[in-house]
Amino acid sequence: MSTPVGNITFAPATTVRAARRAFNFNAGPAALPLPVLERIREELLDYRGTGMSVMEMSHRSPEFEAINNAAEQNLRKLLAIPDDYAVIFVQGGGSMQFTMVPMNLALPGKPVDVLHTGAWTAKAISELNKGVLHKIAASTEAAKFTRVPRADEIKLSADASYTHFCTNNTIEGTQYHALPTSAAPLVADMSSDIASRPVDVGKFGLIFAGAQKNLGPSGVTLVIVRKDLAERADKNLPTTLQYRTHIKEKSLYHTPPTFAIYILGLVTEWIAGEGGLAGIQKRNEAKAKLLYDTIEASGDFYTCPVEKSSRSLMNVVFRVGGSSNQIGDENLEKEFAKQATAANLVGTPGHRSVGGMRISLYNAVGLDAVEALTHFMREFHHVRG
Amino acid sequence: MSTPVGNITFAPATTVRAARRAFNFNAGPAALPLPVLERIREELLDYRGTGMSVMEMSHRSPEFEAINNAAEQNLRKLLAIPDDYAVIFVQGGGSMQFTMVPMNLALPGKPVDVLHTGAWTAKAISELNKGVLHKIAASTEAAKFTRVPRADEIKLSADASYTHFCTNNTIEGTQYHALPTSAAPLVADMSSDIASRPVDVGKFGLIFAGAQKNLGPSGVTLVIVRKDLAERADKNLPTTLQYRTHIKEKSLYHTPPTFAIYILGLVTEWIAGEGGLAGIQKRNEAKAKLLYDTIEASGDFYTCPVEKSSRSLMNVVFRVGGSSNQIGDENLEKEFAKQATAANLVGTPGHRSVGGMRISLYNAVGLDAVEALTHFMREFHHVRG
Repeated sequence: MSTPVGNITFAPATTVRAARRAFNFNAGPAALPLPVLERIREELLDYRGTGMSVMEMSHRSPEFEAINNAAEQNLRKLLAIPDDYAVIFVQGGGSMQFTMVPMNLALPGKPVDVLHTGAWTAKAISELNKGVLHKIAASTEAAKFTRVPRADEIKLSADASYTHFCTNNTIEGTQYHALPTSAAPLVADMSSDIASRPVDVGKFGLIFAGAQKNLGPSGVTLVIVRKDLAERADKNLPTTLQYRTHIKEKSLYHTPPTFAIYILGLVTEWIAGEGGLAGIQKRNEAKAKLLYDTIEASGDFYTCPVEKSSRSLMNVVFRVGGSSNQIGDENLEKEFAKQATAANLVGTPGHRSVGGMRISLYNAVGLDAVEALTHFMREFHHVRG
Repeated sequence: MSTPVGNITFAPATTVRAARRAFNFNAGPAALPLPVLERIREELLDYRGTGMSVMEMSHRSPEFEAINNAAEQNLRKLLAIPDDYAVIFVQGGGSMQFTMVPMNLALPGKPVDVLHTGAWTAKAISELNKGVLHKIAASTEAAKFTRVPRADEIKLSADASYTHFCTNNTIEGTQYHALPTSAAPLVADMSSDIASRPVDVGKFGLIFAGAQKNLGPSGVTLVIVRKDLAERADKNLPTTLQYRTHIKEKSLYHTPPTFAIYILGLVTEWIAGEGGLAGIQKRNEAKAKLLYDTIEASGDFYTCPVEKSSRSLMNVVFRVGGSSNQIGDENLEKEFAKQATAANLVGTPGHRSVGGMRISLYNAVGLDAVEALTHFMREFHHVRG
């Protein structure tokens, strides 16, 4: 009756897009692969002969257990996750992880080291400020977060519980292109670049990521955690906030967000069909190169404030019309966003806290979308520059 | 560009069902209204001219804000929620509420009173056991949870922080048909009968409900809380675990489960079109009556262990072939489930902890489904009785 997610194949990619689909550069929730959406639509009233939508199935049914297992196994294969790591699906997004990570992993008297690189590490710090011993081991705030810290700037504690950092900073448009070294377990907020490139999971203690950028819809959070670290937690913590609960029950301690997990499974299957993380990385590099090259080629009409060595392949931020001062002409930026929307290019404005433009190039954004955007950018420059 | 969920109308109900749809009696996640699923399918690749799925939209976009507001407003209208109550959407299901409620509402030195009626209040108690002062103010464990407590059995504390109870016990098949009285605020786990009948929200301090039974898919939890009670919480609690965070940010403090909220909005719209809670209640009463009458009419081939005054309209539990001892013949029950599935009637087995059969009759289960089931029950009795 049920076919595991792992056994399906998608129709080959085609250049024909549904007539009314937008080029979607949203920062998250974000674009999903069209073949995944088409598959969801096809199965919506009757999942593979069950007579039910996945949404209508018991989370304890063999059909859903197969979906849940396939999602986990797909991730294990894609990310080459070692066996001593658990892969669990929880709720509450990255924001809940800012609480759950220290609750489960902080050891008494041993500080949490944090590499501070912008808005998302600030949120993590803000939760640590509620009584968890911690230290800012590096910060690029003085550089206005236009880069991630260099190795020689990172001053780790001798006895840290773990080192927290954010691999890709969605708002600031920065990304680590080499992992920081840390004797204490590395804890990575990988929400905005998970599964966008190969990663050596064995170098991490814990990785977490909301699904809504590269892996699926919002409402499900992936946690990859070295099993021994999950045992640090006090067993008297709330049951749903202990990693070990979800490890033990294979993410089925309580009703999981079943439909979101199903979609995550489809997306991981789609990634595998696109050549896995190596294939996806190539595509992502080509997309980002085209956009950064277009910015550079504009002289100073478009300017990217981020230092070259820290530029993100996922979120490209730039200012419009501000010449070399990199501040941007806010009226021109509004006009850019407005005309872009009219040209079917949506989600171009930067985060409300920093302004400017931000183009998110997650896995599901095709090179065709970036070609359409860069064409628009050259036209806009030509007319308004 | 966007049409609020509140403005749509569904195609009129029809007796023609999609060819392969099952009669779905799952206990949750559970059946969804067919017109809602059809609407989701129709809008899946292009939500009302946006060129995107709802899943692909920013939660800060005007389109999603309209969806979020419509879901809240629909609930306010359906449940006649007074203005001094907040309506928020959070993650983590009822299980997370077993932690969040005491974290936010328990006052120092003032016990939490609990009315213990089965598996779900047991889970609430198990979290209270981790250091929250509480008292079992009533328990029907001695009666094997075959009824909810009578008013004269409830011994409330003079100075309770609040009184916790579960309006409908999914596993045991019991339901309160009159509210317990309590001077302290009533906190109701309404996960399995929310929006199944009119309710006087003003009599509660807080109501919570996972959406996956009567309101939508799993992954979103509705909390209705009197605003002054949300101010009891220590501001040093984790941000995502404070009700006031979600009240202040209108459920948009962090990325919400956008697709689940969209579906909840559609379901509430569908309920409104079915005559609101009064109309839904009538349907629910007719469905339950047909099933309980069929059980009673079987002599003792089918037996319901629940006392008549406590019988649930949502989850009907019964044993098969056990004559009057109400234990059931497990082999016959397995056969019942097997043949039922073959007859396109899915989700009939009872919870793994108690055995027997359980038929969930949530809002989206039609009378036609119960007619098909009761027809099957009479046939099965005729052949195997």
